[in-house]
Amino acid sequence: MKLSLPKRLKDPTGWYNTIVKQAGLAEHSAVRGCMIIRPYGFALWERIRNILDKTLRATGHVNVYFPLLIPLSYMTKEASHVQAFAKECAVVTHYRLKENQDHRIIPDPDALLEEPLVIRPTSEALVWHAYKDWIQSHRDLPLLFNQWNTVVRWEMRTRPFLRTTEILWQEGHTAHATAQEAHEKSLQILDMYASFIQNYMAIPVHKGRKTAQERFAGADTTYTLELLMPGNKALQAGTSHFLGQRFAKAFDVRFVNATGQHEYAWGTSWGLTTRLIGALVMAHGDDQGLVLPPKLAPIQVVIVPIVKGDATLNHIGDISTTITNVLATKGITAKFDADMHHTPGWKFAEYERRGVPIRLSIGPHELTNHTVELVRRDTGSRSTVPVEQLATQIPSLLTAIQASLYNRALQFRKTHTLYPKTYSDFKEALQQKQGFVVAYWDGTTATEQAIKAATKASIRCLPLQAIEEQGHCIYSGKLTTQRVLFAQAY
Amino acid sequence: MKLSLPKRLKDPTGWYNTIVKQAGLAEHSAVRGCMIIRPYGFALWERIRNILDKTLRATGHVNVYFPLLIPLSYMTKEASHVQAFAKECAVVTHYRLKENQDHRIIPDPDALLEEPLVIRPTSEALVWHAYKDWIQSHRDLPLLFNQWNTVVRWEMRTRPFLRTTEILWQEGHTAHATAQEAHEKSLQILDMYASFIQNYMAIPVHKGRKTAQERFAGADTTYTLELLMPGNKALQAGTSHFLGQRFAKAFDVRFVNATGQHEYAWGTSWGLTTRLIGALVMAHGDDQGLVLPPKLAPIQVVIVPIVKGDATLNHIGDISTTITNVLATKGITAKFDADMHHTPGWKFAEYERRGVPIRLSIGPHELTNHTVELVRRDTGSRSTVPVEQLATQIPSLLTAIQASLYNRALQFRKTHTLYPKTYSDFKEALQQKQGFVVAYWDGTTATEQAIKAATKASIRCLPLQAIEEQGHCIYSGKLTTQRVLFAQAY
Repeated sequence: MKLSLPKRLKDPTGWYNTIVKQAGLAEHSAVRGCMIIRPYGFALWERIRNILDKTLRATGHVNVYFPLLIPLSYMTKEASHVQAFAKECAVVTHYRLKENQDHRIIPDPDALLEEPLVIRPTSEALVWHAYKDWIQSHRDLPLLFNQWNTVVRWEMRTRPFLRTTEILWQEGHTAHATAQEAHEKSLQILDMYASFIQNYMAIPVHKGRKTAQERFAGADTTYTLELLMPGNKALQAGTSHFLGQRFAKAFDVRFVNATGQHEYAWGTSWGLTTRLIGALVMAHGDDQGLVLPPKLAPIQVVIVPIVKGDATLNHIGDISTTITNVLATKGITAKFDADMHHTPGWKFAEYERRGVPIRLSIGPHELTNHTVELVRRDTGSRSTVPVEQLATQIPSLLTAIQASLYNRALQFRKTHTLYPKTYSDFKEALQQKQGFVVAYWDGTTATEQAIKAATKASIRCLPLQAIEEQGHCIYSGKLTTQRVLFAQAY
Repeated sequence: MKLSLPKRLKDPTGWYNTIVKQAGLAEHSAVRGCMIIRPYGFALWERIRNILDKTLRATGHVNVYFPLLIPLSYMTKEASHVQAFAKECAVVTHYRLKENQDHRIIPDPDALLEEPLVIRPTSEALVWHAYKDWIQSHRDLPLLFNQWNTVVRWEMRTRPFLRTTEILWQEGHTAHATAQEAHEKSLQILDMYASFIQNYMAIPVHKGRKTAQERFAGADTTYTLELLMPGNKALQAGTSHFLGQRFAKAFDVRFVNATGQHEYAWGTSWGLTTRLIGALVMAHGDDQGLVLPPKLAPIQVVIVPIVKGDATLNHIGDISTTITNVLATKGITAKFDADMHHTPGWKFAEYERRGVPIRLSIGPHELTNHTVELVRRDTGSRSTVPVEQLATQIPSLLTAIQASLYNRALQFRKTHTLYPKTYSDFKEALQQKQGFVVAYWDGTTATEQAIKAATKASIRCLPLQAIEEQGHCIYSGKLTTQRVLFAQAY
């Protein structure tokens, strides 16, 4: 089967959808926006999950499991929460099927639920309902819970990983005795997420606050991580919410503090999703396919034999086993592909498509010289390396590739971050999707909405690192200290 | 808070429900039969999951993810499958909520799905629909896929872990080029499951085949693992199905075999669920609470300080750190509980309830002598051990406890396995729930149903290890070679 991949710059959407399928990450199911995640894609998710899970445990968080189904009445307790999620809830109304007179299988009208159930779009409502029982005294706090599960949000326009109806994610829910402690938790998690995305995914991150318009429904403050993707659109990669006492009040979660008084608990919630895989694909991929950062690649090194006869193959197999074992002792995953149904050329293309960071090939020539040919996926650069040097060269090369991917992405972001001086330049930059556009904003929702109407761009965040300095709002001209990040977004 | 636990033998149901909650395993949510799994319960599930996942990977299975939602039409393709699951399917009919005129939130009538969706009760239908695309040639086979997820089966009578509406599980789905290979896979998995339950859960297992009556809807053969629980009822702990070509035919999954002909693929499916935790609770627990097998206990050793003053506590803390570190090098998880809000007596009861296999306590007397007091959870036996001997004694003691729990369970099963000679003894043994009852069966559904009507007992399995010998059916008197296992079941 000849595979053809649309050009990434010419047809980014076609390229993305094709590569997600051709690299074996995921495919569509019959239900709108619900993906089947294939072994290679799931291995990538497992690597992400294992690293984050370890970090969360190391910082005192514990895993729990809350049910998939939420009674409708729970959803309605926090008013802004239900308003936001009402438009995208999958609703279970029946608990049985039956065969009707026409021999068709239908939901059994006699099995209508008294109260409809919602498939969780997020679990705050369930969690805070339980917290009411679990939190009595300040000694019960903090609760630092996390769960790995799936949520459903009915989306009209879906794209694999980037916007799906069913989302695999991690959702953290903490409760604290003081506002300060909860607030610090939301920022600690934001930092942890940012560090993961930068160090493992090799993508630079803007940390910031969302405006009131873009805030999570039920949060006092939403912190966000914003990435710039090729195509110059922003991607919200994760959020961490300081919930204040909103859910505590909605679910009446009070505790006796150290001085014997009753207080509402303070909360946070935060999550990262399979959207990260979409970010990985877009940020580093090229016309040949995926380019995976070494720290997340399920296969870091592939060894392809170039032979016809079996005798040589066995010999190459032996050398490959030695290489694989030596790399394993350094924590590097190498795969020897001995499948003789495919040509070396087919395999080269296949592992390029799958973004394997380093390819080694060994043929009769290399056997004689006791060398391998080494090709870097990110640059395509080619070199000949003596077998006995691989154990030292490959680890440092993987580190170099990881750094190089990050620097490339950082350079891309720099090139595509604009500081327009006039509203007309500002508008043009946003309309034409030239990247992140930095400008002063007067802090009003009216201005935010007017800019959105004119450009389709939103305020991605109020950056946390911003130095406070005065300037004039790009739209209203009013004096302000808020210099914010605009962009069109996925 | 004084906790009181019903006596296990006097009130097994009360005991079970109380201990599940009091040991911090799980509690009810507002949705019938959907549990909230708390940190300790989830840690237990994670241990089970990690061990099984590792074993599955080591035998070539890979993890994937299929969607939560299944179009109704998929469910109806395999006729017996939909018949069996129709009565317990949660059905999604709407994708949006709205506020009605009375300001109540309701499923939006304008957001009725054209085709209802079923929350997966199991994923054969989705998997085999995808296999049609993925299987063309014998070279694409076998597919050895597994996924960890949750399924929903609407249950009327639920009990935490044992029978829940939402079930956490692992479901394997394989496709093969030959009947023999698929059949061997279903038996390989059965053996793997049995070995896990015996070696890690310390519970003896009967491996067997289900009768046609009790078979999975869509399988040619269902293999099962049957445990005997205190209360003398059987528990089906897991199943492995040889699907034959049923799903391949229902979803038209054909491949070109080595001789160029089209054939339907052969399938298996198999799963283990959170029910295993219920089995653990029942099999080993006693009037003080859980008794966890060391190989699965999230905490294997707890160290409780017995002091009033801080100075001594620090000293005990230092020794405990040394002990904890030394045990960690042997892969043993020890916890030092320095919390001064609770008395040693409270902690003793708490860790007994949680089933921690070994408790060490250190007070002024032990400090002086450089010893610890050691108490085994399973026997309550008490000894004084020099600190420097712990590194050797504890590993072997944990091994001994694991073996002892298994032997106790095996002895229990032997004592409660009956071989009645007459139908009246047979009937009495089953009616009075005296345990596993072994008897000849003539192989007819009529006899099976008559016995069930008379005793509430079912044929748990046709044991695989049975030596073939002739005898007379306990009910009909007909000559047969099938000697089978009867019992009432959970």
